[in-house]
Amino acid sequence: MFPIRVPGFKFAGVACGIKKSRKKDLALIFSERPAAAAALFTTSAVKSPAVLAGMKRVKGGKIQAVVVNSGNANACTGARGLKDAEAMCREAARRLRIDPGLVLPSSTGLIGVPLPMEKIKTGIKRAARLVSADSFVEAATAICTTDRFVKIAARRCLLSGKRAVVAGMVKGAGMIAPNMATMLAYILTDAAVARDCLRAILKRSADRTFNSVTVDGDMSTNDTVLFLANGASGNPPVRRGSREERVLSRAAEAVMKDLALKLVEDGEGSTKVVEIRVDGARSAAEAKKIGFFVANSKLVKTAFFGEDPNFGRIMAAIGGAGVSIQEGKINVFFNDVGVVRRGVGLPGNERRAARVLKRASFTVKIALNQGRSAASVWTSDLSYEYVRINSAYKT
Amino acid sequence: MFPIRVPGFKFAGVACGIKKSRKKDLALIFSERPAAAAALFTTSAVKSPAVLAGMKRVKGGKIQAVVVNSGNANACTGARGLKDAEAMCREAARRLRIDPGLVLPSSTGLIGVPLPMEKIKTGIKRAARLVSADSFVEAATAICTTDRFVKIAARRCLLSGKRAVVAGMVKGAGMIAPNMATMLAYILTDAAVARDCLRAILKRSADRTFNSVTVDGDMSTNDTVLFLANGASGNPPVRRGSREERVLSRAAEAVMKDLALKLVEDGEGSTKVVEIRVDGARSAAEAKKIGFFVANSKLVKTAFFGEDPNFGRIMAAIGGAGVSIQEGKINVFFNDVGVVRRGVGLPGNERRAARVLKRASFTVKIALNQGRSAASVWTSDLSYEYVRINSAYKT
Repeated sequence: MFPIRVPGFKFAGVACGIKKSRKKDLALIFSERPAAAAALFTTSAVKSPAVLAGMKRVKGGKIQAVVVNSGNANACTGARGLKDAEAMCREAARRLRIDPGLVLPSSTGLIGVPLPMEKIKTGIKRAARLVSADSFVEAATAICTTDRFVKIAARRCLLSGKRAVVAGMVKGAGMIAPNMATMLAYILTDAAVARDCLRAILKRSADRTFNSVTVDGDMSTNDTVLFLANGASGNPPVRRGSREERVLSRAAEAVMKDLALKLVEDGEGSTKVVEIRVDGARSAAEAKKIGFFVANSKLVKTAFFGEDPNFGRIMAAIGGAGVSIQEGKINVFFNDVGVVRRGVGLPGNERRAARVLKRASFTVKIALNQGRSAASVWTSDLSYEYVRINSAYKT
Repeated sequence: MFPIRVPGFKFAGVACGIKKSRKKDLALIFSERPAAAAALFTTSAVKSPAVLAGMKRVKGGKIQAVVVNSGNANACTGARGLKDAEAMCREAARRLRIDPGLVLPSSTGLIGVPLPMEKIKTGIKRAARLVSADSFVEAATAICTTDRFVKIAARRCLLSGKRAVVAGMVKGAGMIAPNMATMLAYILTDAAVARDCLRAILKRSADRTFNSVTVDGDMSTNDTVLFLANGASGNPPVRRGSREERVLSRAAEAVMKDLALKLVEDGEGSTKVVEIRVDGARSAAEAKKIGFFVANSKLVKTAFFGEDPNFGRIMAAIGGAGVSIQEGKINVFFNDVGVVRRGVGLPGNERRAARVLKRASFTVKIALNQGRSAASVWTSDLSYEYVRINSAYKT
């Protein structure tokens, strides 16, 4: 599996001088043939021109190349920003000899500064010459900003007797990191997949993975998750409701979950990965809402950092979620150690609970006992290092 | 005005041993006659039994005494908690020789531990002997937990030719401080006020003051704002829609705004008080929603601490608020220095903007240019000290 290869896809990652550090800052992902495409974009009302250009292109249903720059988010850049995003696509298309309407652009980094287009064009030219099937990691490196490590994952599966690969790369360290912003994720498969099926798999898997993690509760202007299927595997296209859809979906969700948990692990200043598991809710939406309220509470996150089994803060966050609940039915556990039973604290278990919190990862289980639905969200702790990274960083 | 006196009200604050520090931890507020009462309580689904007991009593329209303990929140304590809250009221009523149905209880502090009722009863007995017109500050001290300073305010006004006082005390350092939780506020006046008018003044003033500040975005199980009017001033009762209502309302809102800004100033780890002013919105509710989204963003708050004029984080927070807006119409200012014009960053003004952020208090003005409504919210910055207070604290 390593180095990761996805048949029919080629990659490149180069340094073109956008980052002062001289680290890689321009990536190309290229499919030998146009690939079926599905995508999810930031729901923020403030969107990068790169996102606007990408949304337009994905509507066509096919994408053949992705051009990504890191170090500059091309956000809050107005009409010029949109022109620059289009120019990135045109340049990539010219160098790769494909239709510019099949190129999706992404940008991540500093907000409010125009893109250095000459550097980017030079970078695209070099990257287009370098694209190769073995350069997955180079591309995954070039999309990073404040990330402490490169985040990639892959799974194999068998579709109608043909072998297929699902591989993904993601960048992000806060949901929106210190201006060096954004989550960008690219999931690639050589399977042939009907487009409505691709969209369904992406939506469902992202809900349970990328849309179930939080580092800082903030949303970026540039968030993008793109799923490309180029059909090089030769399988008959996977259709909705088929057995093959379930197989591919399992592989895709596993890749996205790996990547999503790596996002939390690399969360700015993160020292722990904590699953908040809410069950016994009246609906999955209510379970997730409560989970996110707990996961985003600054008081809960600082208690995790302090390794303090502070069930009071968890109960207060549950209560504040805006979901109608009966306090007297709630049980709370740190892994298997009960700390709240029927809404009442169990201070006697504190020492055992404190041992759970010393681990690098653990689960807070919230049993509402008010229905049959459940959801998990994953979060990091809130440390001195988070404040250092985000206050010391200067625009 | 100092010492603060409110005719017809008496106060006491004593130490009865709930806090290990031996600081004052029990307060009484006593009105010589039953006072018209209006109150706002936490909207959390997890409520302290003290809040439940208080909600029931305020429905009667009259309150004559308030008994408050600090050091223990009497939350997540189940049936026993409710019995204890009722017992606090009965004991205060017995010692003050009034109807137990006219006593409102409050608790603030550690969650999940039963109240030490023997200590509390002894404290109530001593406090009831000590109540005096000059002990406003003693009571304001006894309601504090992690507060760095005592927070009180007062205003005079003239109602139908009679002099009246509005005075208030508040405690709170996070919206819910480190388990030592909660905002408690008691606003007292010797004016005579019709109850519907009292409720209207409280609701309107609290919306613009207590409900427009945020330290950590968390909500407590115990939050309470109580407004009592005992009529000792001798004025004809203030009625809705009258000139007197406007006069009294101005005084009450001024007191509550003083107290609310002191809450932010005393916010855990706070080094700055920042007003987020949103205007040009389609409704005041939308303006406030955007204001709170910016005010609660961890990335914005760490940028304030780092004194970084990071307009990108502000634009990203505006976009994430879930309000439909046109990015291309937005202007953003730090005091009078423009940093975003029509949605596009103005990096050239960064040095001047950075000077504004060095101040202990400043205004971020967000001009949406999409309507005629406005709202202000006030917030603190997010510092190392916030993480220290909330992670070092042990239950």
